[in-house]
Amino acid sequence: MIELDERARKLIGEPNLAHLATLMADGSPHVTPVWVDLEGDKVLVNTASGRVKDRNMRRDPRVALSLVSVSDPYERVSIRGRVVDIRNGEEADRHIDELAKKYMGVDVYPNRRPDEQRLIVEIEPESIY
Amino acid sequence: MIELDERARKLIGEPNLAHLATLMADGSPHVTPVWVDLEGDKVLVNTASGRVKDRNMRRDPRVALSLVSVSDPYERVSIRGRVVDIRNGEEADRHIDELAKKYMGVDVYPNRRPDEQRLIVEIEPESIY
Repeated sequence: MIELDERARKLIGEPNLAHLATLMADGSPHVTPVWVDLEGDKVLVNTASGRVKDRNMRRDPRVALSLVSVSDPYERVSIRGRVVDIRNGEEADRHIDELAKKYMGVDVYPNRRPDEQRLIVEIEPESIY
Repeated sequence: MIELDERARKLIGEPNLAHLATLMADGSPHVTPVWVDLEGDKVLVNTASGRVKDRNMRRDPRVALSLVSVSDPYERVSIRGRVVDIRNGEEADRHIDELAKKYMGVDVYPNRRPDEQRLIVEIEPESIY
């Protein structure tokens, strides 16, 4: 685990989409946009149980993230790291609402499906460029 | 190889950044922002020789791309595919200028380094969601 520099913290703190790469069962890459925030030096992603990226990260914890600032396309950061925990329950439900506040300016995540279980994915950064 | 649908063609046709995932030597993912355009149903990326993603794609051709519309964050596409060719020379130099036109509105790519060799990376899509 490494410490995130100020530039990475700033890009993650602002409502910039991140693109999360995970590994399919055959080892090939998969990449989709995600909302992110920070918990200390860990990057938190929120997803729903059973999605491709959830299954991928449980099989192989190695991931990568790429963020570009919406206000300045030259401000960008790429992080490689490892999933160290996946948490569910009320905490994950609160977290998706916090991300909806950050990214959409609303108090409650509006796209929640009644049958889905939200997950907080905790990522430890191992390299940044 | 599959055909790209209209939604994917539209997102790639507009000046939306793509995030390209490649595989490091140890099989872990790496993801960075890239400019893209289309050649028929193939996605073209332009990079410089010797970069991490260039070395990664020569070692393992499996890649993935994620695009989100700058104008509508709900418009998004994820593509998994395979690098089928990497071309250099004048054609690749012209291509980076074309991409600079698309993404920056300028005729000549302004960040060119005298010592770098530009490359066109040709990607055949294998799945889209």
